[in-house]
Amino acid sequence: MSEEYFLGIDMGGTSIKIAIVNDAYQIIDTVSLPTDPKKEPQEVLQEIISAASKLAYYEKVNSIGMGIAGNLDFEHGVLIFSCNLPKWRNTPIKTTLEKISGKKVFVDNDGNTAAIGSYFLDAHQEANNLVCLTLGTGIGCGYIIDKKMYRGSRYIAGEIGHCTVILDGTPCGCGNKGCLEAYLGVKHISQYAVEYLAGHPSEIISRMSCGDPAKITPALLHKAAVENDEVAKDILNWTGRFLGVLLMSVINYIDPDTIVLCGGLSQAGKYILDPAYEHMRKSGFAQKLPNYNILISKYTSKLGVVGCAMLPSFSNGKQ
Amino acid sequence: MSEEYFLGIDMGGTSIKIAIVNDAYQIIDTVSLPTDPKKEPQEVLQEIISAASKLAYYEKVNSIGMGIAGNLDFEHGVLIFSCNLPKWRNTPIKTTLEKISGKKVFVDNDGNTAAIGSYFLDAHQEANNLVCLTLGTGIGCGYIIDKKMYRGSRYIAGEIGHCTVILDGTPCGCGNKGCLEAYLGVKHISQYAVEYLAGHPSEIISRMSCGDPAKITPALLHKAAVENDEVAKDILNWTGRFLGVLLMSVINYIDPDTIVLCGGLSQAGKYILDPAYEHMRKSGFAQKLPNYNILISKYTSKLGVVGCAMLPSFSNGKQ
Repeated sequence: MSEEYFLGIDMGGTSIKIAIVNDAYQIIDTVSLPTDPKKEPQEVLQEIISAASKLAYYEKVNSIGMGIAGNLDFEHGVLIFSCNLPKWRNTPIKTTLEKISGKKVFVDNDGNTAAIGSYFLDAHQEANNLVCLTLGTGIGCGYIIDKKMYRGSRYIAGEIGHCTVILDGTPCGCGNKGCLEAYLGVKHISQYAVEYLAGHPSEIISRMSCGDPAKITPALLHKAAVENDEVAKDILNWTGRFLGVLLMSVINYIDPDTIVLCGGLSQAGKYILDPAYEHMRKSGFAQKLPNYNILISKYTSKLGVVGCAMLPSFSNGKQ
Repeated sequence: MSEEYFLGIDMGGTSIKIAIVNDAYQIIDTVSLPTDPKKEPQEVLQEIISAASKLAYYEKVNSIGMGIAGNLDFEHGVLIFSCNLPKWRNTPIKTTLEKISGKKVFVDNDGNTAAIGSYFLDAHQEANNLVCLTLGTGIGCGYIIDKKMYRGSRYIAGEIGHCTVILDGTPCGCGNKGCLEAYLGVKHISQYAVEYLAGHPSEIISRMSCGDPAKITPALLHKAAVENDEVAKDILNWTGRFLGVLLMSVINYIDPDTIVLCGGLSQAGKYILDPAYEHMRKSGFAQKLPNYNILISKYTSKLGVVGCAMLPSFSNGKQ
């Protein structure tokens, strides 16, 4: 009985998932806190450790891994800037958490921790080169290359949501036009859906959303598509083409053996994968496609926190 | 005096450059043969070694490196398919050359050998993560990651010319629409130039091309821009924006410390780099740009063959 325990902290825009994970990558105990952007970082970090310390086996934990969206100084574990958390500027997360907990702490971008989670849970450590794409509000991306995390020279490798897919296209939140995120980001899909519905009304979507455009999310569109709603399928087809563009780029740039899709949009399953593959086949990828293991994560809700917990073994000795 | 010698063979669409390179990466002796796509591969490989064997220090060469455009089975040194060389299908280049020469042979994609050349010549081996972009008929790309060649899981990493930059845009030779190559490939730039000139005549370009549209190459446009021709500048500005899109993608995907540009278009220098940077700054890259060493190769004509010669040290033990 030499079981090891790891603490993972996955800090998202709406909630903070905290879990004790064992050396079989199973969640032993877990708790969630709401993300409150108005609170001071020091207070939030204190609350996280306070909640974590009540979890089973916390005292047996040697290391803590935390994932967070934003621009990180990886070597020092400092969050430089995060869109969701305006109070978190140049926040020394690593040293603060180490002080509070007395344990060794590792901090990384949540795109990378998701990749670690998918490597253990979805790919069973069998992938050599894995790309994990988190399809949510933004497009997160993490790489495992030769079984090691690749973060790039300035720790921004994989910030692919702002690659141009239609030069001079739809305005993106970043100030540019035609970024991938402006088509594949969840908010933009909802926006497109509302516009499309104006010309193509759907009773099913109208019923499901109670006539409230704010409720038209990819999850709702997926539900409507399952009920055979043609309008929902059209919208997801349109979205799926951009997923095809993304997958082609990932293959052309990185050529991984495994691509894992996670995040809200990934749950639309075949309704976005089928049009993505159709687009790729038209583009001459017909022969290449079977070479790639493209899968939708079965663990999208816990992949992040498990990846955070296992982060210490992917720090490349740099933190 | 323990100088070592390496033989490099850079097989392009129009010529085959052969050179003996010493261990200071200098070309000691060199010869070129015209590429004749009608000849049988066996005959061509025989002619290459016959020409190489007349070069100074050939007998001291232990290893041969060859670069060629096309789809390669890297592990076995077999050229599966090459657009320029229809007779070369499943050609076992490595074993054939080893039989003819009696020396150890390594074969790789010419995008990768160019990256090796730029790593030694332009980056003086100081880069950790280097991307070399060959801007010619196609867009070649090779990666040095952590000072090792990264080829991907199926040896196609870096085939980035067919990433989409304008979905449903200009038709590309590959059958898809809106690929990067359909805007940044040399032929497409010439085509765009001819169209643009129809509405914006230029006396300088007309004189330089002797009124022959086939002569309107990026090199000619560069010469016209140097003579302050506004129309040539407009065309190169348009091209430069796509270079900006490419550079942003390379940084977002790979985050290298060094990017080397080579190939015909790279010689347009500031006339394409300035608009590329302008586009990147507009897209929020203003702060990031100084972090990246982006340079135009000073060795564009010999980088390929030097990279081929030095290929053996970048085979990762896989050939």
